[in-house]
Amino acid sequence: MNVTSDKHLADGVREREFTLGEIPGILWTPGSVPAPAPLILLGHPGGLHRMYPRLLGRARHCVAAGYAAATIELPGSGDRPRSPAADQARADLRRKVEADEPVDDEIVDRLVLPLVDEAVPEWQALLDALLALPGIGGPTGFSGGIISIGIRLAVVEPRISAAVLFAGSFVPRALFDEARQVTIPLQVLLQWDDQGNDRQMALDLFDAFGTAEKTLHANMGGHAGVPEFEGEAGNRFFARHLR
Amino acid sequence: MNVTSDKHLADGVREREFTLGEIPGILWTPGSVPAPAPLILLGHPGGLHRMYPRLLGRARHCVAAGYAAATIELPGSGDRPRSPAADQARADLRRKVEADEPVDDEIVDRLVLPLVDEAVPEWQALLDALLALPGIGGPTGFSGGIISIGIRLAVVEPRISAAVLFAGSFVPRALFDEARQVTIPLQVLLQWDDQGNDRQMALDLFDAFGTAEKTLHANMGGHAGVPEFEGEAGNRFFARHLR
Repeated sequence: MNVTSDKHLADGVREREFTLGEIPGILWTPGSVPAPAPLILLGHPGGLHRMYPRLLGRARHCVAAGYAAATIELPGSGDRPRSPAADQARADLRRKVEADEPVDDEIVDRLVLPLVDEAVPEWQALLDALLALPGIGGPTGFSGGIISIGIRLAVVEPRISAAVLFAGSFVPRALFDEARQVTIPLQVLLQWDDQGNDRQMALDLFDAFGTAEKTLHANMGGHAGVPEFEGEAGNRFFARHLR
Repeated sequence: MNVTSDKHLADGVREREFTLGEIPGILWTPGSVPAPAPLILLGHPGGLHRMYPRLLGRARHCVAAGYAAATIELPGSGDRPRSPAADQARADLRRKVEADEPVDDEIVDRLVLPLVDEAVPEWQALLDALLALPGIGGPTGFSGGIISIGIRLAVVEPRISAAVLFAGSFVPRALFDEARQVTIPLQVLLQWDDQGNDRQMALDLFDAFGTAEKTLHANMGGHAGVPEFEGEAGNRFFARHLR
């Protein structure tokens, strides 16, 4: 892990940009660290530059509550090498959504499964690197999307103790089976009128999760309209499970 | 309004039992009142004695956050005169549920519509009486069930500014139409595996509410298993809308 910039933002947030091998990432921590802070990994749909303002907003919520927060770029997004196969699958999916046609499972599988297979070990490597830093301790939460990445991480990574998952993307059938194996506490966010997302699929996925402690928070507004107060609600959920 | 008992419980909660005409009720307030407290009306399925421990728990949450909380007995429940028609409808409904048969709209209408018609003016009279007391000010929230009573109150009573509604009972079709007229902020609680409640109906009802700011909180467990943390979540919702 190679820190490429280190600055103190307003309101006591320290922001470090880094690379993990070839993967760019950002770490936000409380400016002065009294004790090792629990860590929250911030998931996103890919494109760190584009997502930066929203990620920073979420990170500020985390840091204000005493957590460290970190994220890395997804495979094939932002400054990382494109995947022609993923670009093709994304174009195929967009065509279906724009034509208001049902999206075939085959397209979703082609888009999401390789991404999950590639991204999850990267987030695990991120965990290895971050938990070795002074000032960052366990336990760790995952917050955000892509929900399929969150599901796989929750199943395979024992250092993830709780997750706030954003039901805002298409989920391969195979991940429903993995969802049944999830046993950590979950809070699932659903934007009720998310045009690019299938509400019934999201409700079915919530139903499928195997964990005994799961809560669904559904709010109005489109994909990017998650209310501000869900940041606090996420912190309170993590406070119950990461302390 | 006639106060029949007045006591100070542990942790600074003052509890007054009263009658409003022939209707028994309970008012909980902070023991020492610095400024008029906003009021939260606590809905319930009927039977104040039976519901008392859970109502007191909810009231303690409210009072700890600086609210006054109050409730009254429902028509036909507890010590109030029974309604033979309602008892008959309730028995018909129970038979259907126990036989795992679909519950006819006609039974739901017979059970719930007269109850709503009778109860809502009583809760409005309660509001008149409480808001005349020193130490209690507006604005006012409604919290709980029966959800049909909450819907009607939200539509007809302008002093209700926000509501946490418990989707735990059968709702007449006519109330779906009233739900479309609701414009106050709502937080709707749904117990995902509530055996006496139709999950899809609850989701349809959430969808029907006309308000722009509505949030669904779905949790695991049966009808009486609403997690403790939803008490706090309700307070934070009211803090956003009653202050």
